[in-house]
Amino acid sequence: MALGQRPAPGRAVVVGTGLIGGSVGMALRRLGWHVTGRDLDGARATLALELGALDAIGEDPEATVTFVATPVRAVAEEAQRALRTGPGLVTDVGSVKSPIVEAVADPRFVGGHPMAGSEQDGVEGATYDLFEGATWVLTPTAGTDAAAYAQVRQLVGALGADVLALPPNHHDALVAVVSHVPHLTAATLMRLAAARGEEQSALLRLAAGGFRDMTRIAGGSPAIWPDICGENRGAIVDVLDDLVAALGQMRDVVARGDRSGLLDLLEEARAARTNLPVHIRAAEELRELRVPVPDRPGVIAEVTTLATETGVNVVDLEIAHSSEGPRGVLILLIAAEAVPRLRKGLATRGYRSSVHPVDALQ
Amino acid sequence: MALGQRPAPGRAVVVGTGLIGGSVGMALRRLGWHVTGRDLDGARATLALELGALDAIGEDPEATVTFVATPVRAVAEEAQRALRTGPGLVTDVGSVKSPIVEAVADPRFVGGHPMAGSEQDGVEGATYDLFEGATWVLTPTAGTDAAAYAQVRQLVGALGADVLALPPNHHDALVAVVSHVPHLTAATLMRLAAARGEEQSALLRLAAGGFRDMTRIAGGSPAIWPDICGENRGAIVDVLDDLVAALGQMRDVVARGDRSGLLDLLEEARAARTNLPVHIRAAEELRELRVPVPDRPGVIAEVTTLATETGVNVVDLEIAHSSEGPRGVLILLIAAEAVPRLRKGLATRGYRSSVHPVDALQ
Repeated sequence: MALGQRPAPGRAVVVGTGLIGGSVGMALRRLGWHVTGRDLDGARATLALELGALDAIGEDPEATVTFVATPVRAVAEEAQRALRTGPGLVTDVGSVKSPIVEAVADPRFVGGHPMAGSEQDGVEGATYDLFEGATWVLTPTAGTDAAAYAQVRQLVGALGADVLALPPNHHDALVAVVSHVPHLTAATLMRLAAARGEEQSALLRLAAGGFRDMTRIAGGSPAIWPDICGENRGAIVDVLDDLVAALGQMRDVVARGDRSGLLDLLEEARAARTNLPVHIRAAEELRELRVPVPDRPGVIAEVTTLATETGVNVVDLEIAHSSEGPRGVLILLIAAEAVPRLRKGLATRGYRSSVHPVDALQ
Repeated sequence: MALGQRPAPGRAVVVGTGLIGGSVGMALRRLGWHVTGRDLDGARATLALELGALDAIGEDPEATVTFVATPVRAVAEEAQRALRTGPGLVTDVGSVKSPIVEAVADPRFVGGHPMAGSEQDGVEGATYDLFEGATWVLTPTAGTDAAAYAQVRQLVGALGADVLALPPNHHDALVAVVSHVPHLTAATLMRLAAARGEEQSALLRLAAGGFRDMTRIAGGSPAIWPDICGENRGAIVDVLDDLVAALGQMRDVVARGDRSGLLDLLEEARAARTNLPVHIRAAEELRELRVPVPDRPGVIAEVTTLATETGVNVVDLEIAHSSEGPRGVLILLIAAEAVPRLRKGLATRGYRSSVHPVDALQ
């Protein structure tokens, strides 16, 4: 399979047919895959079938890949079951990665987390294009099989997502900052407003756009959060501690009337917010970077997370000859302007690389 | 002038021709008013003239009303100047009310705060319909002249806004909760994310919709905030203290893995957020409530803030015969279903009232 090509359609299983699982099923079926699904809630699986997210309900021993899309606390067990009962690859979509990746620890398992939609909604909201342009984190480790990673990566890319490789603990620390703690903060602001609002009607009429934007996520179902906060407890508590300290600093600046101190803090925030990029699927010129690598576990995790760390977007990735002989070639499709940066990073880790034009990207 | 009618066009002055001042000018001109404006920055006044927000630049001794739309710290001085140099009414649009209302303390001054747009943007963003459907707080006090209040109220209503009467200190406490502290929190979350983001590109690619929504307001210019935080320091520090305490509580619930405690906190927030009403301009059946009142200062503040406290939306308000004889009649246009509630509140304060159908609302 050449870089940029879609993987040939095959057979997949989706475990947990909610918003994410249902959307994976719809997207795969649109690509010609045969999708079998199951759910603890039989009615939900039936609904997924009726909505066109599944071809069948039950098991599929011939499936080459299983997506585990259950609530976070059930992922590890379902992933292990899929690995035990079939020879295929297994990936998941859970919002927390370290506990799952550590518990499963299998070369055929690749942890994943699509930053799209939200587990709190049902299959009724599922669409085949939910992942179009979304970031989908994959968390390869030293134990991940390179070919397994490459296949999952290509499949997720075919669903329309941009893949971002991160170490599991790094993923968890980052989502604590940009997702989990913001959610808890929105809920706290909303509770504060409600507590102050004995005159609810006045307070609520004053709540203009900014407040509504800030508290919108607090309106979702709380059901998924005990799991997430349980599994990512350490990172969330760390970030909450930092947030409390930073708000205390803000409070002191306001309390002492420090105008320039306040301006500095807000200017720092403004600059960071302005740099928050609108997601753009780059139409930039691409290059193939070929990296000869030893055929051992951990290489794929090292190279892909290095790319992430140096800010290089890997548009596509292929392993050549990875299962034959002692060495393979890792082929990375990246922006031409990013080539020197990634080559330098690779060199410091002892990898040589060569650059090639992209002939035909289909 | 009957209830529901627009005030006859006259002559107005706008001091400070930014987004809000410019929009007031455009809206008034559309209603047939002659609008004179000035700005500390002459180029900005010229631009406001070019954009159609003003008829003329300078002073207008014949103006019957002056809108002070300068930055918060300059409002009191400009309001006093307008009161000194002319016989007309004066109102303002500042985000903090107590210090201004206390400093000006004149029967012809009515403090105001439209919850629309934001002072940080220039006159380029001004539109005649900025206040359409927005909540516009007015803060009458015991010293406010009833007829002055009624006129400002009717004029603001003619600009398309829904008026909400609040005591100045109450306004300031509420905006600390729904506007000022949320802004400072958004900035703090953004700074936290930026500080954690040595690997900016990964973090920023993970920042999905919820985080973007929560930090959007942190992208605005910080210039207005030292004024606001200076003038509303007490209320802001109070709310920040509460927020820090509430986040500490949230942190402890997460740290000890208290699933049901977390669910309770989040469910409380969800319920409050769900009750945050989409602003609806009621098409409900209306009644005139007529309240004989002594013609003394403070009555209008007492009755209108009582309406707010009991959750009654005053659609329109008129003073009959307020300047003749020892008594006047306050005519309030309110929803039929709200009549018993407001009458009961009025009765406990010693006001009798009568209910009348609305014959012709133009």
